[in-house]
Amino acid sequence: MIKAAVLGFGTVGSGVVEVIERNNEIISKRVGDDLKVKYVLDLREFPGDPVSEILVHDYNIILEDPEVSIVVETMGGMNPAYEFTKKALLAGKSVCTSNKELVAEHGPELMRIAKEKNVNYLFEASCGGGIPIIRVLNTSLTAEVIEEISGILNGTTNYILTKMAADGSEFEDALKEAQANGYAERNPEADIMGKDACRKIAILSSLAFGKHLSWERIYTEGIADITAADIKYAKSIGCSIKLLATARSMEGGRYSVMVSPVLIGPDNPLYSVNSVFNAVFVRGNMLGDSMFYGSGAGKLPTASAVVGDVVELAKHPNDNVMMEWSEEPMDLIDQGMARSRFFVRVNGTAAGKLPDIQKVFGNVETISIPGFTDEFAFVTQEMSEQEYKEKEAKISGILNMIRARI
Amino acid sequence: MIKAAVLGFGTVGSGVVEVIERNNEIISKRVGDDLKVKYVLDLREFPGDPVSEILVHDYNIILEDPEVSIVVETMGGMNPAYEFTKKALLAGKSVCTSNKELVAEHGPELMRIAKEKNVNYLFEASCGGGIPIIRVLNTSLTAEVIEEISGILNGTTNYILTKMAADGSEFEDALKEAQANGYAERNPEADIMGKDACRKIAILSSLAFGKHLSWERIYTEGIADITAADIKYAKSIGCSIKLLATARSMEGGRYSVMVSPVLIGPDNPLYSVNSVFNAVFVRGNMLGDSMFYGSGAGKLPTASAVVGDVVELAKHPNDNVMMEWSEEPMDLIDQGMARSRFFVRVNGTAAGKLPDIQKVFGNVETISIPGFTDEFAFVTQEMSEQEYKEKEAKISGILNMIRARI
Repeated sequence: MIKAAVLGFGTVGSGVVEVIERNNEIISKRVGDDLKVKYVLDLREFPGDPVSEILVHDYNIILEDPEVSIVVETMGGMNPAYEFTKKALLAGKSVCTSNKELVAEHGPELMRIAKEKNVNYLFEASCGGGIPIIRVLNTSLTAEVIEEISGILNGTTNYILTKMAADGSEFEDALKEAQANGYAERNPEADIMGKDACRKIAILSSLAFGKHLSWERIYTEGIADITAADIKYAKSIGCSIKLLATARSMEGGRYSVMVSPVLIGPDNPLYSVNSVFNAVFVRGNMLGDSMFYGSGAGKLPTASAVVGDVVELAKHPNDNVMMEWSEEPMDLIDQGMARSRFFVRVNGTAAGKLPDIQKVFGNVETISIPGFTDEFAFVTQEMSEQEYKEKEAKISGILNMIRARI
Repeated sequence: MIKAAVLGFGTVGSGVVEVIERNNEIISKRVGDDLKVKYVLDLREFPGDPVSEILVHDYNIILEDPEVSIVVETMGGMNPAYEFTKKALLAGKSVCTSNKELVAEHGPELMRIAKEKNVNYLFEASCGGGIPIIRVLNTSLTAEVIEEISGILNGTTNYILTKMAADGSEFEDALKEAQANGYAERNPEADIMGKDACRKIAILSSLAFGKHLSWERIYTEGIADITAADIKYAKSIGCSIKLLATARSMEGGRYSVMVSPVLIGPDNPLYSVNSVFNAVFVRGNMLGDSMFYGSGAGKLPTASAVVGDVVELAKHPNDNVMMEWSEEPMDLIDQGMARSRFFVRVNGTAAGKLPDIQKVFGNVETISIPGFTDEFAFVTQEMSEQEYKEKEAKISGILNMIRARI
């Protein structure tokens, strides 16, 4: 009998208890032993809920129980999750988590402690919810030099952008609808400002490239400035606008990592990833392009990923899963050197303004759409962010700029 | 130093040697030890090729060399691959392979021998080329009861269907072009008749559902009867036609597995999987829908998957990776009980024929397209294959029938 303790009985924690209970037969078969949740730690009481029978309020009960070999941290946030995780690992218990903040902040240290204690610290559910991307990077794409890992890593923003594209609605209205449907939190800042996607690409790129990338170093833009008009222009040239988190290997062992809205075309596998779905795109030097698609959030998909980790921990007690992610910081290129094309909306008419724009930007593609008489858009050739900024300063009446990978 | 031997220096085998050589630094880092190919077995000589230095013609040299702990079987076919694999496992060496015929035929026996000898038999590259679906099923989606696993599992047929849709060409012409471009073999039967996809879905469903499914038991249709006209009709209602291999869990512990062309709409994640790309769709009872997309064939992507297995074997010597795939046969429903909608093309005019069709099929959606004056199409409601056959017999002038998941 393998016994686990779940820290935090919120959305994911209660999902973990539910998944282990509902799929217990097949899970125990795959583990090769019975798997049971012995304790749930939460400060709250849950009168009438069966969890009451295994509910504890004192973490030491779990820590000091030698029967508990697996600790499932689904509390979220930094404290006390960090302290509890460290104590569990030091006590020789393996830990798995859905806590992206903690992994992004202290992942390398916690993995090192796990290795020293010959146990494991797993975090499949921290990126992409139910998409099994962490283990794929760690155990499947091991023959590859990863050249790029990018993705749609936040369900809330993808829901909003999909809604805006489908209904022609503005950001504020789509956000309200997302909140009404439970797809956005009342305080949606972490999602819409791109912070959630930023934490996730920090983890994914650290794992893919083997060095630590602190999330604070990643250039991050959210979607609050995307308008219905931007999306209409994008649609008119067959593109969609997605909040992409991208990480690319550049020359000289350096990397380019950023989070921002991007125009992408139908030949991009991420183009048709809609609503609350997430997807991770990986390009390897031998494999070429691949993509992993699924529910990026939600109670049961996320809990399923956590329990997948529990199964791995149960199958491999005292067998550290080596991860190639050192504490050495990743070498990033200067953000000004990052290259892409730029989609730019300007006021005025193409007839009047294009000559000036061409003088600055050279050859551009222009886009005009019905109903927008006193503005138009253009897409530049590929250039660096620095170069774009210098050129932009020479043009008046710019309404919006969105990067374009087309 | 971990030493491997590669059996067969064909497309995949030479790719394995190339991947291990080109990515040696990162591969050895991930293994935690140097990885080297000590022998390549092939009956042929390769004068001038560096492989000559490690080429052997006698399998016993490999078998009897205690330094070789990993055997990579990339010969294909049943013999002598089966005999060589069995001998390697019995000698306590782990084996990995890209040989779907062998896995589909003797997988359970070879896995059992591996388990008895506390080594491993891995076959990531046998299904979906570079898509890491085997390890995902085996180590990631372990908290799930899998309800469906389906996919576009053959690059040749997907290339042909994509070409037909893009150019409006007929099957024979698209096939010739595929052959000219190296995407179809000179004898393309195994691909276009669906046999290749059939072997792969036999392996995937056995792994997903835990019981052995012999490929001969799977109802299989190829794409040779798909015409340019069928694709025009499908496009007119926003659908594409794909060769799908589908395996679904039904009531009472039984399964429905088949390979056939299917009409799918843009809301299906497989809809935009084009050209030689493959994709595997998985629906779990907790996870919901997920999809894994990538190069389904090709020398380096397939070799990358094989080398991913080599890395796993090197990291876990003498530690059997338990796979839940028993030798007990899978319980299939009668093919006549399989349910879907049916797209049917008939000659005549809708005005003249529809009343009779409605008498037999009830409410149907009709499709007429410009340029096709003496024929039309209709899509039935969902019914069983048996029911469809009985109804079809009552209608004259049927030109083609394709299953529809719309």
